[in-house]
Amino acid sequence: MSHTHSLDALIQALRRLPGVGAKSAARMAFHLLQHDRAGARQLAQALEQAVDQVRHCARCHTFTEASVCATCLDARRDGTRLCVVETPADQSAMERTGAFHGLYFVLMGRLSPLDGVGPRDIGVQALLERACDGVVQEVILATGFTAEGEATAHVVGEALRARGLRVTRLARGVPVGSELEYVDLGTIAHALADRR
Amino acid sequence: MSHTHSLDALIQALRRLPGVGAKSAARMAFHLLQHDRAGARQLAQALEQAVDQVRHCARCHTFTEASVCATCLDARRDGTRLCVVETPADQSAMERTGAFHGLYFVLMGRLSPLDGVGPRDIGVQALLERACDGVVQEVILATGFTAEGEATAHVVGEALRARGLRVTRLARGVPVGSELEYVDLGTIAHALADRR
Repeated sequence: MSHTHSLDALIQALRRLPGVGAKSAARMAFHLLQHDRAGARQLAQALEQAVDQVRHCARCHTFTEASVCATCLDARRDGTRLCVVETPADQSAMERTGAFHGLYFVLMGRLSPLDGVGPRDIGVQALLERACDGVVQEVILATGFTAEGEATAHVVGEALRARGLRVTRLARGVPVGSELEYVDLGTIAHALADRR
Repeated sequence: MSHTHSLDALIQALRRLPGVGAKSAARMAFHLLQHDRAGARQLAQALEQAVDQVRHCARCHTFTEASVCATCLDARRDGTRLCVVETPADQSAMERTGAFHGLYFVLMGRLSPLDGVGPRDIGVQALLERACDGVVQEVILATGFTAEGEATAHVVGEALRARGLRVTRLARGVPVGSELEYVDLGTIAHALADRR
């Protein structure tokens, strides 16, 4: 079935979004053209504006429109603690806990040798320079507890320790609200080893 | 967590896509800005171009960039048979069978009283005018076999029969390749009633 050229081009472009296959892309294009052309225009403008405006914070590498992000510029935050996270979404989760008042470094990724993502791609060198500003006393590694997140924490932690910095890792353990019976055994073993 | 304004605007705009929630939208925005800015620009341009160029065929209502679509203009097709489908995707499925050589009318939706979609929204009046062109001899209702698709077929079929047109419906029955044991009972009952 030949759709029109513009429609085919839109479906192809939508397929570049993560998690969107051929059928989803066609459904999205159909929905926008049939029911929400204003939404389509708004999305087009938001894409252009974000690509034009959004860059990385010179200090923490998260997305920002200024040269340094609002969090890094916030004088009320504790500059002696630096939390290393994989993504802005992880940073957002950490912020929502309300339990951390230091600063961040956002790797914008994680080590993934199989996907060709090495230390240079996640800005390890920039992190080392950032952490050695003379103010940071503790670096908290808050990468994920997946295989790739753990590998990232290991590599980053070794490099930071070699510079004489104090490095900590988020505690592994039983999630709040869980019954032990339903927690996986690896987590229970870690929680036992890290008991306090 | 306050992202930047442009990033928040992009996430909100992505949420207007069907099936995309807050986390998916953030993941899409992150992916585009971090790994595929060229894809973001391409998507923006494809959206603008599709909204500017794509309209509905004056004869069959499907998406087209001309006033009448290529299928309706194709002189080799059999104008005596008109197949009514819900969406361009359904039309595409019908075309891929290679078993239909007539023309189409695309409702661009289906009756859905709960969602406020009535006969006017799916162009029943336009279909009646199209079907009464003096050439069409048979209208084949190929709306879905869902509750809404069946209701649509019923309403459209009644209106067409009232104009004296011959109206048929796709056969209900056991899907090709199925073992009876695994086919739902409603389908088997219909296949029995429509045996040939």
